[in-house]
Amino acid sequence: MEKQEIFAKGQALPKDWFSGEAFLNLLIARDENNDFTIGSVSFEAKARTNWHTHPKGQILLVIEGNGYYQEKGKAAQPIKKGDVITIPENIKHWHGASAKNKMVHLAVTNYKDEIQVTWLEPVTDEDYQVVTQNEL
Amino acid sequence: MEKQEIFAKGQALPKDWFSGEAFLNLLIARDENNDFTIGSVSFEAKARTNWHTHPKGQILLVIEGNGYYQEKGKAAQPIKKGDVITIPENIKHWHGASAKNKMVHLAVTNYKDEIQVTWLEPVTDEDYQVVTQNEL
Repeated sequence: MEKQEIFAKGQALPKDWFSGEAFLNLLIARDENNDFTIGSVSFEAKARTNWHTHPKGQILLVIEGNGYYQEKGKAAQPIKKGDVITIPENIKHWHGASAKNKMVHLAVTNYKDEIQVTWLEPVTDEDYQVVTQNEL
Repeated sequence: MEKQEIFAKGQALPKDWFSGEAFLNLLIARDENNDFTIGSVSFEAKARTNWHTHPKGQILLVIEGNGYYQEKGKAAQPIKKGDVITIPENIKHWHGASAKNKMVHLAVTNYKDEIQVTWLEPVTDEDYQVVTQNEL
């Protein structure tokens, strides 16, 4: 029996910005009190974001599975259920699932004026394989 | 075997503001990008906040168990794992566990200037019993 997810998986995310099967359940929209969105983002094994930046940063709260967070020019950091990642503003990075397991994180994404994210190029299969080649 | 919590339980919350056994793990502190805190708050069965208000609102994301959210003058609303509650600014309310089960929620609490919360009187045992008397 598959474990029940905390939040419903939501809608498929666009292939222009994500590789593989990724889903978004938008839990909180921007309003007069909350100058951010909160979404539950589910990555099936091997799924990941494109490289991207946030003009006012983002917080990831990993609630299931395991995966990776990598800033450009640094080693990829394994992340797992219970981890909290604070992504600074204007840092090129990606996040996603491990090669063998899914990963679900909540994402709290601040606005700077009307912008939350600037999407860049995909994480290539070659670069992803370098990161995941030593997975058990 | 007790189920593994997603986030560590953290530190006991003060009896001045909480009834029963409640705990806070502060996951995200305020910084230059994030004008809020995020905490994982664990309520053992029967534990609850005092009545209180937030000057710029709060978001609750229930990640385990079940409990209640009540605004003053309204019926208490049962809440459970997977529920999302948007608390408006300056609304007197409380939240906490059910009488028989624990409840864990993430709390995203905005700042208005330097203030996040104004604490008021406890939810009395009598009022809590009225809310929970029909629990199965």
